[in-house]
Amino acid sequence: MRYPTVSAAPAHRADMHRCAALLARHLRRIGLDSVAVRPGRVAPLVTGEWMRRPGAPVVLVYGHYDVQPAGPRTAWTTEPFRPVVRDGYVHARGASDDKGQLVAQLAAIEAWSASGGPPVNVRVVLDGEEEIGSPTLRHDLRRRPRHLSADLAVVSDTRMRDPHTPVLVTGLRGSLAVRIEATGPATDLHAGAFGGAVAEPARALCALVASLHRPDGRIAIDGFHDGVRPLRPAARARLARDGPTDRQLLAPAGVPFGHGEPGHSAFERATVRPALVVTALRAAARSAIPRRATAELSIRLVPGQRPDSVVRALRGHLAEHIPYRVRGRLTVLAACPPYALDLGGPEVAAACRAAAPVFGRAPLLLPSGGSIPFVSDLAATTGVQTLLLGFGLPDDGIHAPNERFALARLHRGTDTCVRLHAELGRL
Amino acid sequence: MRYPTVSAAPAHRADMHRCAALLARHLRRIGLDSVAVRPGRVAPLVTGEWMRRPGAPVVLVYGHYDVQPAGPRTAWTTEPFRPVVRDGYVHARGASDDKGQLVAQLAAIEAWSASGGPPVNVRVVLDGEEEIGSPTLRHDLRRRPRHLSADLAVVSDTRMRDPHTPVLVTGLRGSLAVRIEATGPATDLHAGAFGGAVAEPARALCALVASLHRPDGRIAIDGFHDGVRPLRPAARARLARDGPTDRQLLAPAGVPFGHGEPGHSAFERATVRPALVVTALRAAARSAIPRRATAELSIRLVPGQRPDSVVRALRGHLAEHIPYRVRGRLTVLAACPPYALDLGGPEVAAACRAAAPVFGRAPLLLPSGGSIPFVSDLAATTGVQTLLLGFGLPDDGIHAPNERFALARLHRGTDTCVRLHAELGRL
Repeated sequence: MRYPTVSAAPAHRADMHRCAALLARHLRRIGLDSVAVRPGRVAPLVTGEWMRRPGAPVVLVYGHYDVQPAGPRTAWTTEPFRPVVRDGYVHARGASDDKGQLVAQLAAIEAWSASGGPPVNVRVVLDGEEEIGSPTLRHDLRRRPRHLSADLAVVSDTRMRDPHTPVLVTGLRGSLAVRIEATGPATDLHAGAFGGAVAEPARALCALVASLHRPDGRIAIDGFHDGVRPLRPAARARLARDGPTDRQLLAPAGVPFGHGEPGHSAFERATVRPALVVTALRAAARSAIPRRATAELSIRLVPGQRPDSVVRALRGHLAEHIPYRVRGRLTVLAACPPYALDLGGPEVAAACRAAAPVFGRAPLLLPSGGSIPFVSDLAATTGVQTLLLGFGLPDDGIHAPNERFALARLHRGTDTCVRLHAELGRL
Repeated sequence: MRYPTVSAAPAHRADMHRCAALLARHLRRIGLDSVAVRPGRVAPLVTGEWMRRPGAPVVLVYGHYDVQPAGPRTAWTTEPFRPVVRDGYVHARGASDDKGQLVAQLAAIEAWSASGGPPVNVRVVLDGEEEIGSPTLRHDLRRRPRHLSADLAVVSDTRMRDPHTPVLVTGLRGSLAVRIEATGPATDLHAGAFGGAVAEPARALCALVASLHRPDGRIAIDGFHDGVRPLRPAARARLARDGPTDRQLLAPAGVPFGHGEPGHSAFERATVRPALVVTALRAAARSAIPRRATAELSIRLVPGQRPDSVVRALRGHLAEHIPYRVRGRLTVLAACPPYALDLGGPEVAAACRAAAPVFGRAPLLLPSGGSIPFVSDLAATTGVQTLLLGFGLPDDGIHAPNERFALARLHRGTDTCVRLHAELGRL
């Protein structure tokens, strides 16, 4: 956590390499073979393996050592890249997402190494580009390299419901990031000389963005929902029983009431229903009419939706709704499909058996609204499923100031991972 | 023009003072008395007078020595603050707006000084804060100081129709700049964890901005048009005859077709009809839902509208249209009322007689869509009218790269001002 491994900041390239070298030394120290630091587009990939258990399953342990930018220093009570242990928590950027959690995975391997090696074969892949969409890994996946070949993947990069209740994540939403640019006049135009007489890109963009939802909160794009299946009553009942209430989910957002697709709980809206949010609006010209305005959208997809079909639907909507005196252009910035865990597989039962003795209860089976592109792509490309068994909490402050991770969860997470290897070895 | 007198840039304060000192020396050199450099909020005001013609009218000559920022250097073919004379034009930021034009006014005084002094009394006020709304001068006006007391003002800060056709501006639109801020969540929110379940300020802002106009281009704010009188057929006929065609007006904007209030020409829409344009949109949070989004609007007002009534109408619209799960706040950034010249006054005829022999034709009487806060306030506060007789051209590049001013227009402008003093002296 001392390395500011911000993958989005080119200034931190050297820190990425230093952290990767540290991780490689650590992988060797805990007994892994063929440890390598592989060059990536932005940051290296650190890999290692322990393949000395012939006939046992191959488990791919994935984690990421890159982090989100710390944001304004003033918002932090301690230095973001000087980890401090206080009141049972380690405080630092990356403490929960994902450095602390990947350490739980590595500590489990280390524990097994001390007694003859894990009961499964293990491949470890530590990504330095997760926060920027894992470009290197996702490109590598297409060539199906040996270091990504496995029967099953295990990832600790998700959250528990509360400190006593682990969660096995049953699905991730897909993600589609797009930029919409509206242009018109050749230059910025004096608002006095032209105001009232020309079509404005910024105004057209606002009307376009407003047209993406119906007033009731439903997404208004023709064809957007194609393939989305209604939730089954049993699944809804499980979400209602095990998931957070609206109040619990919305409390960290600081809003008293939710808003979204009618007929759904906040948890359903944020996990198993698709969403379209505006992440950026940009237009500016000192007291003038800007010649150009852009919006960035983050679209979250659920099973049945494919990024390319949704892009097609969006382009159709754009063509219908942009006024004809303004030009609109859509650029896809990033995309990954949704991911769904096969709940009937024996690995799910194994994960439940592993966590139960540590936490005193089996994990809840709940979906996440987030996206982990590597997990989605791994399933889409190779059919390999991922057990998403994480030890974070909603109030860990990931992607926010004062990120932290409880040492108690590090220890219980390690314990769970040790037992998971044993359970998977018996399959 | 060598001084980068950018009033909006605090880094240029010293340049403002140097340019003011230069102007003060020049005013003394051309024979003015009581020359003073008066401290201003951002830049000094340079004043001087020649009051030795008892019984003759007092003419207030107003000009401004501050300029707009030059913008990106790469867009200029020569250095913006190294004036170069080429092909009969002086090229520099401020060449046309307003340094070149105020020099025409001062050269006329200088010419009269060389032969016993002008036939009128003259007060000169050179503003260093016009491009930021003239805060010092407008505040001073309320106290009606002697250096602003006059029977009539003359300003050269407007444009001719073409190089052969001067224009006496019959009115200026008022200006109202506001910021609308939409807020909701306590922090930026992870788009995966919350997308679909919360009201978004950025989306609400877009819907609000879209609601400000009807699809046909008309402003949709209740009460916005209160007090606006329909144009009289004679005035419309004069605008159609003397003003630019739609094609002429829109050519510099680089758009083939206009867009605006139905039933009006582009020139009417841009001068004698009110307008509301978006000058900025801002919201951003790296792949997250921004907790805050802002829009800035520039509203142009016509006679019959008052800034405070329009603000009230806007607040009413905001209260009606902002979704109740998002907070909206409106801040007024700047305001000035519209200005209308009394076309029946003898000064108008005097101005026409002054320009006619220089250009071979009388000036056209046409409105401008722009705003000059000091001119509006002078009329509103003291009742003093302003002859807006400018020598710029629409393609001078004011507020844009490669600003320029033709030396021929400097000379004809000077000639016109010399004659104007003579005409006003005879009233």
